[in-house]
Amino acid sequence: MSRAIDPRTGAAVGPEIADTTTEEIRDACARAAQAAPWLGGLSFQERAAVLAALGQALRDHSDELVALADTETALGRQRLTGELARTAAQFDLFAEVLRDGAFCEATLDSPDPEAVPPHTDLRRMLVPLGPVAVFAASNFPFAFSVAGGDTASALAAGCPVVVKAHPGHPGLSVRTAEILAAALSAAGAAEGVLTLVHGEAAGRALVADPAVTAVAFTGSPGGGRALFDIAMSRPDPIPFYGELGSINPVVVTAAAGEARPDDIADGLAGSAMLGSGQFCTKPGLVFVPEAAGLPGRVAERVAAANLAPLLTARIEAGFREGLQRLLKVPGVRALLDVPEPTGAGHRVAPQVVTADARTFLANAAVLTEECFGPVTLLVTYSTEEELAAALALIPGALTGTLHAEPDDPGAASAAAALGARVGRLIYNGWPTGVAVTWSQHHGGPWPATTAVLHTSVGATAIRRFLRPITYQDMPEPLLPAALRDDNPLGILRRVDGVLTTSGVAGQAR
Amino acid sequence: MSRAIDPRTGAAVGPEIADTTTEEIRDACARAAQAAPWLGGLSFQERAAVLAALGQALRDHSDELVALADTETALGRQRLTGELARTAAQFDLFAEVLRDGAFCEATLDSPDPEAVPPHTDLRRMLVPLGPVAVFAASNFPFAFSVAGGDTASALAAGCPVVVKAHPGHPGLSVRTAEILAAALSAAGAAEGVLTLVHGEAAGRALVADPAVTAVAFTGSPGGGRALFDIAMSRPDPIPFYGELGSINPVVVTAAAGEARPDDIADGLAGSAMLGSGQFCTKPGLVFVPEAAGLPGRVAERVAAANLAPLLTARIEAGFREGLQRLLKVPGVRALLDVPEPTGAGHRVAPQVVTADARTFLANAAVLTEECFGPVTLLVTYSTEEELAAALALIPGALTGTLHAEPDDPGAASAAAALGARVGRLIYNGWPTGVAVTWSQHHGGPWPATTAVLHTSVGATAIRRFLRPITYQDMPEPLLPAALRDDNPLGILRRVDGVLTTSGVAGQAR
Repeated sequence: MSRAIDPRTGAAVGPEIADTTTEEIRDACARAAQAAPWLGGLSFQERAAVLAALGQALRDHSDELVALADTETALGRQRLTGELARTAAQFDLFAEVLRDGAFCEATLDSPDPEAVPPHTDLRRMLVPLGPVAVFAASNFPFAFSVAGGDTASALAAGCPVVVKAHPGHPGLSVRTAEILAAALSAAGAAEGVLTLVHGEAAGRALVADPAVTAVAFTGSPGGGRALFDIAMSRPDPIPFYGELGSINPVVVTAAAGEARPDDIADGLAGSAMLGSGQFCTKPGLVFVPEAAGLPGRVAERVAAANLAPLLTARIEAGFREGLQRLLKVPGVRALLDVPEPTGAGHRVAPQVVTADARTFLANAAVLTEECFGPVTLLVTYSTEEELAAALALIPGALTGTLHAEPDDPGAASAAAALGARVGRLIYNGWPTGVAVTWSQHHGGPWPATTAVLHTSVGATAIRRFLRPITYQDMPEPLLPAALRDDNPLGILRRVDGVLTTSGVAGQAR
Repeated sequence: MSRAIDPRTGAAVGPEIADTTTEEIRDACARAAQAAPWLGGLSFQERAAVLAALGQALRDHSDELVALADTETALGRQRLTGELARTAAQFDLFAEVLRDGAFCEATLDSPDPEAVPPHTDLRRMLVPLGPVAVFAASNFPFAFSVAGGDTASALAAGCPVVVKAHPGHPGLSVRTAEILAAALSAAGAAEGVLTLVHGEAAGRALVADPAVTAVAFTGSPGGGRALFDIAMSRPDPIPFYGELGSINPVVVTAAAGEARPDDIADGLAGSAMLGSGQFCTKPGLVFVPEAAGLPGRVAERVAAANLAPLLTARIEAGFREGLQRLLKVPGVRALLDVPEPTGAGHRVAPQVVTADARTFLANAAVLTEECFGPVTLLVTYSTEEELAAALALIPGALTGTLHAEPDDPGAASAAAALGARVGRLIYNGWPTGVAVTWSQHHGGPWPATTAVLHTSVGATAIRRFLRPITYQDMPEPLLPAALRDDNPLGILRRVDGVLTTSGVAGQAR
């Protein structure tokens, strides 16, 4: 049983929502499997139209959804309106990916009796994997929830979805699922293309269900690891695409610290406090030159930040614990003494903590652990050697950020060190804000994600839910359209090693 | 300590080879990590030249390697000569993949202030993952061993390799590694680009080593699952690309059985007995129309097969056990009564077993388990419904094969049922023999592999060892060549959603 809590008041709002039973999970997964041939059988154009309709349905209900989301998350209507627009646009991007068609990696090799070894006609493409379990996150109630990127990319791939709702916004989850279901039904979809389920035990049963072929998860390292372990200990392990936790290191070179200390302090304070520090891309660990006086400048700005309450009681407790964990390390100092906010709801005071490079090097395991919420750690370094030693200890992260100057002698080595550990490398900018584009990568080595090859945002997120198949000597009528001789879809294909949109001469088959 | 056994005599041959110690494993992995920047830092053209040199080195030592392989595996010089040529050609294919450059998926998005959300300059490509552990298989001492596809594709990706030798051909493994190492050294490679290790405990330590970023494995389901579990229970789990076991189902439609019973029996007997049934693509489960009389025809041909001894004592024991497991199922019959071969070495008699569809449906779990070696199971069906029910129970497999006739009413449904469970779907051919091409896929759902999205053969095998990174607002001098404005490599890139080999106008950055 779950019920939404208004983070501004701590009061329960909306209806009570029952946990999904184990039997209902089995039924939901079976229905998803039954719906797979319908969804996978649509042409790319038809599936693109379904996705566009889902995006439009979200826009059509924007006011209602934003109001509901604001009640359950307190993220504010402006932010939520933008997030909804981005979430709707995400469906449009995947519709574009489908119409483009290159995502299916169509590849044709003509028979070659001279090859080593000789071979006959071979044609490869990517096809839908099967039903996907999606675990919604709390901090983006649209973009990483029921209608978020995992759902959009799985549906784009042709995979039915069973979404485990996040208990932080259960009412919004139900309403979003209803709106998507109505749009799917209007598009003629089979029942089971999208199902919403509730409850922690239900989530575990979902990951273990034999009909589920992949899991996409955004959430805490602890919860993610537990579900990852279930997926991997199945008799038939399945891919688990988890985004768990990320410290998002930032390096400010000596030259940048000298040239732009106020700009950098402004940007860092803004990025770290955005959404009350509840972004997976929050810059949580910042290496700054000792001489630049950045910790004080950042603390000043953070002290003035106007923070919304945290999303859930669990996040509030986690933040307080994490902050204590940092401050218990000898040599780590808190720079702010902001009084704890009074009043109802999940309100906390922001914090800026600092340590020198020696302290960091001696305590890197604790100091590189993510603390979700409004805090950032500034580590002061005094030499390039200290910085290099520290960067060798950073864990995998979603993002890394470099602030440097033109012809900066420190730029190349810091970029290389960050680039070795992160999925996105930002130059003279800030990591919060994840554009939804062809080239976006939102992933990274463990513990940022459980699947370093893949992204949960951007056009290539679809790749997670597709598997290759190669047809050998298959007659035209049994081949998918993407692989037929005359290239009826007009998509880019690799034919005998050459990329082309042309057809091929028919084989005598 | 291990020593090669000549499968023809059972006698030990060649030098004793010591197991690699845990400390040596740690050193090997550390050296691999140190070599990563050298290998990853080569241009695509330079790395292609290194791969071509490795292929040429194998060809230059062909006579010596084939002779050594024949002593340790008894696979015969003709087969081994072909396999070596294919293994050398594999390096050439990956050299071609590197020169082509599209493998790195270069993608550029110009700044777009109108997008939802707005974004700045984003550029994505794939970069090397890091050191890779490769576990060699026994049955392809070239193509799936030290110089095999896993090694070639990892090196192509820019990842140093530590190979765990298969104890079935340890002397050959050592010599192959020496030849590759000499060629690498001549190409100016850092030490640690390729290291060979020995021993089961060493293999486990290798998978657990913090410097290792991915594992590629070809071998038994039991051994593969054990190593998979080690990889997944690391503090930082890593991708495990295992090819474990595959039953490779075949469907002969009623029409095909009537039209070509002798051709089909010839082809099936030849494919199932190839290499004494020690192919991962051996057709192990064949659904045949009851009326065609195929079991008897196949048995007749298999009885006449001239089999080489099995590769190892372990494979011999596994085959005998597996055959007994099949024959213990009530309703399963052995069709051959070939006397057990006499004489030294790992020699066994071939077998053909049969069951009706009802027996199969009642015992699918046992009857779909792979039995590695010279046996195949023919399941007779009498109706389309029986066939459909049986096909719903087949596990994931590397291949599926359909024998049908033009305008065959049974073809489409059988193709769909097989296609849902296999990585390669063959029409009127046989699954043994895996061409190394752009479009090849050698993979499939569990238990065929542990990573359904990936292949161990063909051009896209390189994808397993690459991770994406996106650069945001990165200045030209800090960008890799593949992402620079003027496209200096001349590779295919996606720029603002459009595929092109042109450059882009420089950004004011």
